[in-house]
This record gives sequence, C-alpha cells and structure tokens, in this order.
Amino acid sequence: MLDQIRIVLISTTHSGNIGATARAMKNMGIADLALVDPVAELDSEAVVRASGAVEILDNAKIVGTLEEAVADCSMVIGTSARSRHIPWPLCNPRECASKAKQAAGQGNKIALVFGRESSGLTNEELQRCNLHVHIPTDENFSSLNVASAVQVLCYEMRMAALADTPDEEDLQWGVPWDYELATHEELERFYEHLEGTLVDIGFLDPNTPKQLMTRLRRLYGRVAMDKVEVNMMRGMLKATQRQANQSNSKK
Amino acid sequence: MLDQIRIVLISTTHSGNIGATARAMKNMGIADLALVDPVAELDSEAVVRASGAVEILDNAKIVGTLEEAVADCSMVIGTSARSRHIPWPLCNPRECASKAKQAAGQGNKIALVFGRESSGLTNEELQRCNLHVHIPTDENFSSLNVASAVQVLCYEMRMAALADTPDEEDLQWGVPWDYELATHEELERFYEHLEGTLVDIGFLDPNTPKQLMTRLRRLYGRVAMDKVEVNMMRGMLKATQRQANQSNSKK
Repeated sequence: MLDQIRIVLISTTHSGNIGATARAMKNMGIADLALVDPVAELDSEAVVRASGAVEILDNAKIVGTLEEAVADCSMVIGTSARSRHIPWPLCNPRECASKAKQAAGQGNKIALVFGRESSGLTNEELQRCNLHVHIPTDENFSSLNVASAVQVLCYEMRMAALADTPDEEDLQWGVPWDYELATHEELERFYEHLEGTLVDIGFLDPNTPKQLMTRLRRLYGRVAMDKVEVNMMRGMLKATQRQANQSNSKK
Repeated sequence: MLDQIRIVLISTTHSGNIGATARAMKNMGIADLALVDPVAELDSEAVVRASGAVEILDNAKIVGTLEEAVADCSMVIGTSARSRHIPWPLCNPRECASKAKQAAGQGNKIALVFGRESSGLTNEELQRCNLHVHIPTDENFSSLNVASAVQVLCYEMRMAALADTPDEEDLQWGVPWDYELATHEELERFYEHLEGTLVDIGFLDPNTPKQLMTRLRRLYGRVAMDKVEVNMMRGMLKATQRQANQSNSKK
C-alpha cells in the first residue's frame, strides 16, 4: 500500500517544510513526493530538516500543475482546513487511510494533496479531489504546519498498512515478552506462599483476614506475571520468612 | 481529557523543536508543557516555529528533573524508539490514547514524555514510566523529529477525546474501580521503601543490585496500582522491616 501513495505539495513557500515533509514521509515508509510549482528552493534548510531523507528530495518530481502531479492516480485526496461552501465527501485521517487502503488493494495509485502554508488549497484544487480529509484541529487554532499535516496523514496510512498483521502469538502488551507467563497453578502457589508469609510477619491475622488476599489477588492477577517474575517474588518471600523465623525464635 | 495531559520534553537541544511542539499541542487542544533541563533557549526560532502558540511557551514549566515534571501524574508514558533489553508494556499511539482516556476519565493526570533529539530517553527514564509508546516508524529510518512525535501522539489523544465512546468513567481494565490511582511520586516512595526492605532482609545486595529493581519496577509499573493498594503494600513492607530489625538486633 505505502508504495502506491504520493505526497503532493502545492506552492510551498518554506524550504524547511519541504525537508520536514521528506523526513515525515520516510519515517512512515512513503517515498513518492511531487512538488507543484514550489516557491521555495530545495536549499540547505530543506536538507537539514530532511535529516537523512535527502533521497526523497532528490527524487521529487517538480511539476507545474496539480493535473500533472496526479495524472496517474485514481484516488486524489485533498487536505482541507474546514468544509467549504460546497459540501464534499469529507473524512478524518483514519477514515481516509481506510479508503486509501481499499483503493490500493485494487491496484490504484493514491495522491494526498497539501496546500500553501498561508491559504491551503483553492476551491478549484479541492474540486479536483475525490475526497477531502480534515485533521480535527482545535477550532481556535486550526492552522497546522504543512509538514505536521503530512506527518499525521502518513502515520495513519502506515497504521492502516500495518493493520493486517494479526500474528499476536507470544505477545504481551504488544511486545514479545522475554519469558513464558506463569501458569494458573504457579500463581496459586505464589498466593499460598504470600499468604503464609504475611501470617509469619504478623501482617495478616488468619482469624480476621478481611479483604487483604482478595486485594492482593486482584493486584497480582491483573499484572500477568511471567515465570521469572513469580520466581523472583517467591525468592523475596523466602527471604522474608527467614527473617520472621529468626525473629520469632529469639523472642 | 485533553486538559489532563502534560507534554514533557527532556533536554531538548533545538529551540525550533520546542516551538513546533507548542504549535502541535495547541492545534490539538493541549496546553500543559514542561521542559526538563532544556539545552535550547526559548529564543526567536522557538517563537517563529510556535506560530501563534506562544502562550504555551510562556506558560511552560521549566524544571530540573523528570521527577519534578511528573510528580502529580498517575500515568507516565514514555516514548521509545524500540524495545530495550527488558521488555516493558509497549503500545502504539492509538492504544496509548485509549489507555490515557480511561485514566483521564478517572480524574488522573497523564504525562507524555519525549527524549533528546539525539538519543531519546535513557533506560533509567524509561523505567520511571508506567507504559512505553512506540510510533510505528519504518525500521530503516526510525528517528522521528521530536515535534513530529508530539504531533502524532497529540493527534491520537484528540481523536480519542473526540470519539463519543460509551461512558468509561470509573472503569479500570474494564471494571469499575474503587479508588484513585497512585501518583508517580507515591509510586517512587513505594519503590524506595521496597528497595530498602529488600536490603534489610538480605535479598538485595546494594553492591550488586543486578536487574532486581528494574524487574520490580516493570512489574508494579504496569499494574497501575491505586492509592489503597500502595498503602497496603507499604504496610506489608513495614511489617517485614519490623521482623528484619528484630532478627538483626538479636543476632
């Protein structure tokens, strides 16, 4: 999907924004950049802000019109600060990425079009788009930096592209965990050991246990401990019991 | 939700990045910025890049340590380029926003912590976080600009805030929770107490601590303890220390 997406900047006035756009694209695995009638040069500021994504600047197509930039694209998505006079199919970045993914799956090229720093896209340009996307900014401060808008859209495209990788085996909290989780039985033995230790140190009165073990089960139960953690905790309990036994035997 | 979120930048070296962070925050309706030991000045470059979000710079708290910046926060989320040696609960920005929304619904403050431009957060800083968030960048070009990372996270926070999801107040892990979550500071005092107790019972040798406290921070950090639980744990630690003191004094 990501190699079917083209980022199109129209009449950008700040070279730093073009550089930052290249960096944002490369971070998200998108490489195809077109500059329509750019005002800024690809100068040293652009290179600094590209920060290692210079090949995207080097390979950028520079064209005169939006038409040329999107000629081979089937889906042209315009970024819009707000809905204009003429209502247009408008979506948020997430819905936009979902539609783009669908189009990409059918072999289509997709253009994401970003307007001028000062004034965005013109109504004429917006009307050449299949779809408008609006990043939901605060209504009192709605003007996003253009490279920031590129960042958000490219991020959503990447999230959509990555979404069909369910293989979640051996994951806990989304990361490969280093050790196997403890079994139910190992946890039960831990709770027994914990309870015995709490009695030994005089913190738990077996005759009036109240809610203590319930609260501890709730705490340790929701943490999903691995085997190494359970062993570590039981080592701590053993050391605690040793102290309690010495203390009690010497009373 | 958005007014319960604090953005924390650590030792930022480029003033433009601080300005761009302020703009990204304001675009998404987030106003609370803390700068920990900043290297850059809030100079004209910062003001230019803030582009109208100058009051966020004016109101930014400048502090010396991460501790001070997050002392009143119950959920501290660190941005991480990749998983480190010891895996930590890791989520993507969308999952992160969902967890933050849940915590905010219970009245908690949330900190999103961003590291140095050159090297991110240190392992020690990451270990002070409850949760790590990773923006899924291309593996061959994974270093995001810090303000771009702020933009993506703030965008996801705003998307979560705007989503009219069912009323999840008073829920934790899907069930009604009875007490307020512990603050970062309360947790840190718990860790100190825990470490001291483990030394007292001879389980932790301060000269060769190995990874013990790291593993314990990972365990208790991911469980999101409430205030009652922390008090209960500290009661257990006190009872343990009493035994250890009696035992040691009678040797």
